[in-house]
Amino acid sequence: MSKKLDFQLSCPMPEMDFDTITIGHGGGGKLTQNLLKKGVFSLLDNEWLREQDDAATLSLNGSVAFSTDSFVVSPIIFPGGTIGDLAINGTVNDMAVCGARPSFLSLSFILEEGLKMDDFWQILVSIREACAEAGLKVVTGDTKVVERGKGDQIFINTTGIGYVHPKAKMGVKSIREGDAIILSGPLARHGIAIMSKRKGLEFETQLKSDTRPLHTICNQLVDKFGDAIHLMRDPTRGGAATVLHEIAGQSGFGIDLFEKNLPIDEEVAGACEMLGLDPLFVANEGLFIAVVDSAIAKQFLETVKNWQFGKEASIIGNITEEHPRQVVLSSIIGGKRVLPQASGELLPRIC
Amino acid sequence: MSKKLDFQLSCPMPEMDFDTITIGHGGGGKLTQNLLKKGVFSLLDNEWLREQDDAATLSLNGSVAFSTDSFVVSPIIFPGGTIGDLAINGTVNDMAVCGARPSFLSLSFILEEGLKMDDFWQILVSIREACAEAGLKVVTGDTKVVERGKGDQIFINTTGIGYVHPKAKMGVKSIREGDAIILSGPLARHGIAIMSKRKGLEFETQLKSDTRPLHTICNQLVDKFGDAIHLMRDPTRGGAATVLHEIAGQSGFGIDLFEKNLPIDEEVAGACEMLGLDPLFVANEGLFIAVVDSAIAKQFLETVKNWQFGKEASIIGNITEEHPRQVVLSSIIGGKRVLPQASGELLPRIC
Repeated sequence: MSKKLDFQLSCPMPEMDFDTITIGHGGGGKLTQNLLKKGVFSLLDNEWLREQDDAATLSLNGSVAFSTDSFVVSPIIFPGGTIGDLAINGTVNDMAVCGARPSFLSLSFILEEGLKMDDFWQILVSIREACAEAGLKVVTGDTKVVERGKGDQIFINTTGIGYVHPKAKMGVKSIREGDAIILSGPLARHGIAIMSKRKGLEFETQLKSDTRPLHTICNQLVDKFGDAIHLMRDPTRGGAATVLHEIAGQSGFGIDLFEKNLPIDEEVAGACEMLGLDPLFVANEGLFIAVVDSAIAKQFLETVKNWQFGKEASIIGNITEEHPRQVVLSSIIGGKRVLPQASGELLPRIC
Repeated sequence: MSKKLDFQLSCPMPEMDFDTITIGHGGGGKLTQNLLKKGVFSLLDNEWLREQDDAATLSLNGSVAFSTDSFVVSPIIFPGGTIGDLAINGTVNDMAVCGARPSFLSLSFILEEGLKMDDFWQILVSIREACAEAGLKVVTGDTKVVERGKGDQIFINTTGIGYVHPKAKMGVKSIREGDAIILSGPLARHGIAIMSKRKGLEFETQLKSDTRPLHTICNQLVDKFGDAIHLMRDPTRGGAATVLHEIAGQSGFGIDLFEKNLPIDEEVAGACEMLGLDPLFVANEGLFIAVVDSAIAKQFLETVKNWQFGKEASIIGNITEEHPRQVVLSSIIGGKRVLPQASGELLPRIC
């Protein structure tokens, strides 16, 4: 059953005054209020949203992660997700890889005049589902509308606050020579799923985006391995290669990468070949890369493999003092080459 | 001297690789990194941004306000400000009227391919200046780029965290019959300044936007009057009328409003007449409306009047049990009329 049908059955849209978003919905007056009441507030209801204040008041105590992302993905509804769950999971994951458990979220829309109310509703429902899965609450928000041709249906910003696990001691400064680099699952699924639906590029595939929250597995890992985890990052836009380059650049170490260990689905590999893309540079949404003490690498890998989405996890490389700031790939056929850094954009608006 | 000249003298742009934003600047690779290093990081440098992690880690302890806003104002540079300082002050003020002192901010850009680097730089400089004035730090951020025609130069999201003053006890539930309603300054300056530069609508005026941070005065008021302040709101899009309607609607009380007490500049009044607009419905950026215990109203007003931007502050009305949920305006010539609620949008993209 398609995502669209699922949603229509589970959470039908109430009667709305308009079939599409109009400029008036951005005025802050009656139209805005009605849209929020019937849409956002009814779906995401909680004690903070009910206050309808300019800011939510939270009682916080401790070390918190604070992260923001704006989402401009096109198309807004794609195989495996919508811009809505992507926006929730994206910010959840930025916090998760810092060892934080997401708690509170702000949610801000920039809508284009003419956005179909039905699509907006589907996105709101997917936001509700993603929030429920991540166990977090949207406590404050904003809605703006721009004229037709001055936006692209919908852009979403989410900004999150989450408590950091007391055992989390991650940072590029913790990285040591000999550390193992672990990738949690197969590469490039999100990027290829989006491309398969992009205008002028469409191709048939069963492939779905890997958008999902990572906070449960990341939290479990931090709880179990504490300061033996030296860094985690989620490789989204720019792909795994971009994160590996960031790690090499920021730590000053080199990275040895083993092509034979890189997990990739057959279908994704085929699509990448067809499109002339290197899967290392294609976007993911539900993966993480961890740099861990080599002494715990195997045990860490086993824990990830026991996670429902981690069966294909693999030790893909290690940290070295050789070739500082460079990522060197040992290919399957035995050669070695320096992995280039992505300059611009393979394909815009992947997240 | 124009704002543009001020900026060019105070903070010249470094040599950039491109004259405009390109799709590649949104890819997360080398181009994005260079743009961030030369632009955002060099101007807004602090210990959190230097970490370049997916999330900033903050140590928080107490009651904090959390607020988000996306800014889509057009034009992006206008008399008295830019979309940059507007985005900082807007979120500062959403927190200020909740009695909070802004501390940490996230900053997220959606740039349109073709945005002039010179304009982007000017906006970044205005962000730096507004942050310095508000005493807050940008600790995390995001940059996305959309294709030409899928955005409008630049949209900005800011999300803030600020400590709530321990004496702040505001909320619609605190409102009582007889409370006085105080407006901090003259109406409609931001809206009229923007309109004077809007394509197809241009007219000559010396008027500038009233964009400014309100946290110092709001904090001082909370410190002095504590729980005798029952509510503060900043009347931005939708104007003062929209905030008054929100207060009436959410509290269940009525509001009596006195036209003769409404502060308004002569030039703004003239422009509103020319454009056929009611200044009560036109946007402001640097005003607040306070609902206070009538026993402290005069003293509160005096304190506001002593603030450099509060000289024209006025008691504009009061809370009543008559005509619940309605705002009734007593006009200068003696009549009374129910103030209508704005339905849609006077003019889109005012903030």
